[in-house]
Amino acid sequence: MNVTLSATLAANEEIVRRRRSGERVLNLAFGEAGLPVHPSLQERLTAASGQNGYGPVAGLPALREAAAGYWERRGLPTDPGTVVCGPGSKPLLYGLLLAIGGDVVLPMPSWVSYAAQAELVGARPLLVPAPPGEGGVPDPERVVSAVLHARARGRDVRSLLVTLPDNPTGTLAATDAIKKITEIARALDLVIISDEIYRDLVHDASTPFLSPAELAPERTVVTSGLSKNLALGGWRIGVARLPSAELRTRLLAVASEIWSSPAAPVQHAAAYAYTEPAELLERIERSRRLHGTVARAVHARFVRAGVTAHAPHGGFYLYPDFTGLDIATSDELAAHLLDRHGIGVLPGHAFGDDPAALRVRVATSLLYGETTEQRLAALEAADPLGLPWIAASLDHLEEALGDLGPARLPAPRAPRRVPVPGPAVG
Amino acid sequence: MNVTLSATLAANEEIVRRRRSGERVLNLAFGEAGLPVHPSLQERLTAASGQNGYGPVAGLPALREAAAGYWERRGLPTDPGTVVCGPGSKPLLYGLLLAIGGDVVLPMPSWVSYAAQAELVGARPLLVPAPPGEGGVPDPERVVSAVLHARARGRDVRSLLVTLPDNPTGTLAATDAIKKITEIARALDLVIISDEIYRDLVHDASTPFLSPAELAPERTVVTSGLSKNLALGGWRIGVARLPSAELRTRLLAVASEIWSSPAAPVQHAAAYAYTEPAELLERIERSRRLHGTVARAVHARFVRAGVTAHAPHGGFYLYPDFTGLDIATSDELAAHLLDRHGIGVLPGHAFGDDPAALRVRVATSLLYGETTEQRLAALEAADPLGLPWIAASLDHLEEALGDLGPARLPAPRAPRRVPVPGPAVG
Repeated sequence: MNVTLSATLAANEEIVRRRRSGERVLNLAFGEAGLPVHPSLQERLTAASGQNGYGPVAGLPALREAAAGYWERRGLPTDPGTVVCGPGSKPLLYGLLLAIGGDVVLPMPSWVSYAAQAELVGARPLLVPAPPGEGGVPDPERVVSAVLHARARGRDVRSLLVTLPDNPTGTLAATDAIKKITEIARALDLVIISDEIYRDLVHDASTPFLSPAELAPERTVVTSGLSKNLALGGWRIGVARLPSAELRTRLLAVASEIWSSPAAPVQHAAAYAYTEPAELLERIERSRRLHGTVARAVHARFVRAGVTAHAPHGGFYLYPDFTGLDIATSDELAAHLLDRHGIGVLPGHAFGDDPAALRVRVATSLLYGETTEQRLAALEAADPLGLPWIAASLDHLEEALGDLGPARLPAPRAPRRVPVPGPAVG
Repeated sequence: MNVTLSATLAANEEIVRRRRSGERVLNLAFGEAGLPVHPSLQERLTAASGQNGYGPVAGLPALREAAAGYWERRGLPTDPGTVVCGPGSKPLLYGLLLAIGGDVVLPMPSWVSYAAQAELVGARPLLVPAPPGEGGVPDPERVVSAVLHARARGRDVRSLLVTLPDNPTGTLAATDAIKKITEIARALDLVIISDEIYRDLVHDASTPFLSPAELAPERTVVTSGLSKNLALGGWRIGVARLPSAELRTRLLAVASEIWSSPAAPVQHAAAYAYTEPAELLERIERSRRLHGTVARAVHARFVRAGVTAHAPHGGFYLYPDFTGLDIATSDELAAHLLDRHGIGVLPGHAFGDDPAALRVRVATSLLYGETTEQRLAALEAADPLGLPWIAASLDHLEEALGDLGPARLPAPRAPRRVPVPGPAVG
């Protein structure tokens, strides 16, 4: 078992430590949605505070039905009997890797936990680069050669994962890329795991969104949750839409031995959320606008400083490329940005990217404020960039980036190991 | 991966199905505490309904401090830095098996999920019989020979699990047995996992309770939770007390990739519960008395019918032995009791026991009532056995058992597989 704690955790702890010691550090590392719980969800949790039964492993019938409705309204007709709920989409993804078995194809870069989970279940991830600007979907041609090569060497490759829209790149693959990868998955007989947890946060509602489940319903698992669209990360609730009774049975067998069920009061609140009442749709709409506005503003600061970065399509991430700086690795780049410029980000290496590629992940969602009042004000503001605390962070960033110049290598440092980690999120 | 759903799930679903179709079936299968949430915990959950951050993987500092206090008051001085919280003790146990690695010695019989979890992480359980009346602790001498034999054959045995008090037998191993097994574990260099989730439900407060963590703090992990003492199973909260920083780091690495953290509002309520305020201590005291009174009454019914059964020491289980009946296996016995006598129980075989031993697990906690009002009345009653619904269930049981006679083999039946499982609890 690989017990090294992820670079995500190390970086986050380091940033928190520096801020506590009084350093002026902009935290662009942590992938939390950074927004408050909507009061109507607090009410539902309260109303369900007497619920203490375990309930079915698959989740409460009301929650499964509501989640089915959520998918149906997005063009995916769904039998509630094919839905499995879990305490976050993270455990569902882990359970799926265990239930499907074999090795998994992952986009490179991709969310830190996919590869780590694969290793925990004894699988080996096949990292296949995603084309620039099409993050979250491994290059279809390279998938074919990677899988055929791996199979020729005796490896049992059974699944392929896509992230729509993507973390860490913040981009959404075009429908053509989805069509191609779905055909490839069919030709290679791979289960597709489509992680669509950022789906409701595509910035421009007119951007075409295609789920592989529309094209290959027989082999696509869709996972989602309320951590990003409704900022309920700490409530731990996720949902999966399974393509077959057989895989569902296997997933439930795993779920029943690892986590039993999500917290009952949370399931009741989530059942309400998935019916998409007006006030929650409005909250998601405001969140989407805020994420888009701030991500674009941060993107503009990077571009202005001469750093290459694809414009963000969804979520609250950017993945700028610092090629040209006199620095050898993304780990050193992240350390340099923290040490010399007071900007906390995560190295692309942590997402499985080439260690020598000078790319980092920038999360923009911690700029909305430190308090519930500030965050609510950011949600309500016609011009959130004009709010003093957000404007100050953007100025800090601009100043820090303006000072980049041709960097010198930072002093050598021992690899970081963190004894008390924060959560590996986002 | 083994994907057969457990007999627990199968039996429970079958009982629920029969009851829905109008059959008179006494559900003695399901291991839920069967009691309501205390109002002060509902209040704490409500007060924390705005909490949506992930927080540390190890759990909120307030919860870890409160859990440390809980153990200190039970003779186990605890640094909050050694506590890890999880969404139930079940995922903590799974994470521990993964973090410790190697094979694990389990008592036979033992809770259904231990062996299933071991198989999921790719380990093999070594089942070692527990002496009669000392359930939950594998026979020390037999542990030595089993481990030495397994190691001689190349197996990497690294841990040993005990359940105090025990599920499924309802008995608590005597302190001498704990001393012996702890010495053996030390001699064999095994990590001890001490599952003490039923500890607060030892029926007689004067019964001596010894945790292996008192004798071998350097190698003992203690796991617990609020599912049994405060009936919060569906809230999913568990705690573990780790013996070393190294194992803690490994467990946190696993936790961060599988579940992140327990639900934040639940953590806040649990932090309150573990400070053991007066009203919750009183609730646990009443629960303990009720569990003991009903378990002893059910025990008396079995003994009166000529069935051998050890008197229960804690929790809400009995493990009667029907030796003498003309039935071949515990699976057939459970089916017979359900089909012919309207009593739903779980076969000992499901707990890893010898399939030919005619033992079943009887859970007594679903007799308290069907509604919150009935269950509260049972908690409040000076004589819960006099409450009409409890008296009726005991009469039903007495009648059914009086009718046992020398049973004939039930008609052969296909092994049950259940497509939609309930949770594997208790």
